[in-house]
Amino acid sequence: MILTVTLNTALDITYRVRSLRPHASHRVSEVVERPGGKGVNVARVLAALGHEVTLTGFAGGPTGEVLREALASTPGPVVDALLPVSGATRRTIAVVDELTGDTTQLNEPGPQITPAEWGTFLDRYDALVPGASAVALCGSLPPGVPVGAYANLVRTARSAGVPVLLDTSGEPLRRGVAARPDIIKPNADELAELTGSHEPLRATQDARRRGAGAVVASLGAQGLLALTPEGRWRAVPPAPEYGNPTGAGDSAVAGLLSGLLDQLPWPDRLIRAVALSAATVRSPAAGDFDRAAYEKLLAQVSVTTAI
Amino acid sequence: MILTVTLNTALDITYRVRSLRPHASHRVSEVVERPGGKGVNVARVLAALGHEVTLTGFAGGPTGEVLREALASTPGPVVDALLPVSGATRRTIAVVDELTGDTTQLNEPGPQITPAEWGTFLDRYDALVPGASAVALCGSLPPGVPVGAYANLVRTARSAGVPVLLDTSGEPLRRGVAARPDIIKPNADELAELTGSHEPLRATQDARRRGAGAVVASLGAQGLLALTPEGRWRAVPPAPEYGNPTGAGDSAVAGLLSGLLDQLPWPDRLIRAVALSAATVRSPAAGDFDRAAYEKLLAQVSVTTAI
Repeated sequence: MILTVTLNTALDITYRVRSLRPHASHRVSEVVERPGGKGVNVARVLAALGHEVTLTGFAGGPTGEVLREALASTPGPVVDALLPVSGATRRTIAVVDELTGDTTQLNEPGPQITPAEWGTFLDRYDALVPGASAVALCGSLPPGVPVGAYANLVRTARSAGVPVLLDTSGEPLRRGVAARPDIIKPNADELAELTGSHEPLRATQDARRRGAGAVVASLGAQGLLALTPEGRWRAVPPAPEYGNPTGAGDSAVAGLLSGLLDQLPWPDRLIRAVALSAATVRSPAAGDFDRAAYEKLLAQVSVTTAI
Repeated sequence: MILTVTLNTALDITYRVRSLRPHASHRVSEVVERPGGKGVNVARVLAALGHEVTLTGFAGGPTGEVLREALASTPGPVVDALLPVSGATRRTIAVVDELTGDTTQLNEPGPQITPAEWGTFLDRYDALVPGASAVALCGSLPPGVPVGAYANLVRTARSAGVPVLLDTSGEPLRRGVAARPDIIKPNADELAELTGSHEPLRATQDARRRGAGAVVASLGAQGLLALTPEGRWRAVPPAPEYGNPTGAGDSAVAGLLSGLLDQLPWPDRLIRAVALSAATVRSPAAGDFDRAAYEKLLAQVSVTTAI
């Protein structure tokens, strides 16, 4: 079982409007709701690849109920181990402009987590980790969760000998890296914020020095740059993808974990991650991917040694 | 009891962001949720004025539950006679830009109402109308409700001898007016759409000819222009109000009904409507008004014969 942790789950709402103009009133022509949060997307992709997945984190309020009901009807073996909390799960609103195709994002901060709720989560996590073959820690922290939360969760997984991947940003990433996670998967902005360097290879090296076992930087159309104990590679899709990039990074995380569990060598894990990521851009929603495109892309991703 | 009808109730959500920019990602710093829809705002103001109010229309899904729970905790005697429906009550999102103070509005269309649900509503309405001293029909129609719905509801009220006010727009207004409601309260845009004329006095005369007993046009800072069987007046606040105009028109509707029930002559009804409307602009939320400002404004609104 792969354990994905999403402390700040979300009800992802997508609105279509003809043209978004500040200060105007807009009629929303289409409303789509989906369970969201990075770890939820990762879980959905892993389940679609045939892995057993358990999802933990927090869910609360009417939005949390909607999220859990939708998760229950998701195809694939995703076990819901979310903890109920008194606050309400946040909403994210993606407003798609039909004229330009642009998306404008509005993200609620998330529920206030009480110290008692955080304590209950730590107990739940401690109980789940020994049964996991890998752990993914994904996304932002809701208010009330200590900023060193991920460092704590990384240490628990390492003590249990379970490989742990961390995908977050800002101070939670900085603290988490110092606890020596097996893999981190920052994007270019997150990597620059962590290291102060906008040069990906230099920044990736710096991130490894800070404690990460492997650093896999997701660089958009330039694919992945990976510095690992086995070597360093660039994995690049055959052509830039056009579509909805939301969730592409989450699919890369799912690919890395899937390849780890299948005991693939690093270059093949990267191929899987890049192919999934590109196939997700072709799909309209985060956490979904175009399976035909994925299978075709597996043969088309190029991996070269990074120098 | 005053009966207010809100077929397309809403969960009104207000987001504060630092500065809304299309195609960017925004962290929402504050989230406020309130029961909404024009007839809900009217009911809240009437209740605050001491009138007994019954609220009917549709509510469904998780958003409908949140709306009904919030209504139950609203101070004042608002009786919830909303009908449950299979679809979910719509959300409206008002995004307040902290830099400019501007508001950008995103309105979901509302739940699909089935023919059976509409039939059940008509039975409920027929049962409620004879016990009402006035009826207010407010706002847009959710999908599935026939475009002639308000005409139908106006006729039922008139047959029962209960005064009926209609506050809607577009084709539902055009059809509703032909059924001869006692009062309509269009704003300048709605009046122009109904009559084809942008000249308020001419348009108001035309709207009366189409069937409305009285036409009270709300003209923003220029106050109200009323053409009634008793005479024609302009009622103007002492100075333009600065604040949040959302719900000002709904408060004017509440003022007109309140004055009707208190058997005030038309000029005094208009004073009440303008004072409530202006006091609502000073209040941060639709359906609320600044009571001290309201009482002061009652002595300051000027009413003159419209020529």
